[in-house]
Amino acid sequence: MAGFRHVVMFRWNESATEERKRELVERLTALPGAIREIEAYHVGADAGLNPGNFDFAVVADFADRDAYTVYRDHPVHRAVIDECLTPILAERAAVQYGL
Amino acid sequence: MAGFRHVVMFRWNESATEERKRELVERLTALPGAIREIEAYHVGADAGLNPGNFDFAVVADFADRDAYTVYRDHPVHRAVIDECLTPILAERAAVQYGL
Repeated sequence: MAGFRHVVMFRWNESATEERKRELVERLTALPGAIREIEAYHVGADAGLNPGNFDFAVVADFADRDAYTVYRDHPVHRAVIDECLTPILAERAAVQYGL
Repeated sequence: MAGFRHVVMFRWNESATEERKRELVERLTALPGAIREIEAYHVGADAGLNPGNFDFAVVADFADRDAYTVYRDHPVHRAVIDECLTPILAERAAVQYGL
């Protein structure tokens, strides 16, 4: 195994203004500077090509599952979830898998 | 933009035997050999770390959205979906986004 990947998608609720989504993206993209276990981190809004898609995805790569759990439970990450994600979240889908 | 990413997750239905899941993985991992637009392709079963997760994820990277749509609509890919995925699929979640 060459690494461990965390994949998560969100659907927004009716509180998800452009400003709130922009703030979430800013806070998420700052995480690799705060949590050294993150090896790769790519977030993005759905491109709108296919009906029924979720609204947003995060793909984050780590050396192993322990490094992922450091990220998952890191207080800087939890603060972004509590302050910027949960208030605009309608639905979440996630998978973690070995690369 | 340095590329275009397709992320998809599945939940299995009650027909998803180990043999059928193994066959799906074999057919999916053969796609990069058949569809030259695929630049990176990583599939995996959920590691079981977190409750409520989906069962399986695919992350596929392409040069741009046109290359992704070639993959999406490619007959070899559609055959894998029809023959190996749809019969064992309960739920699907997807996002495509620019890298």
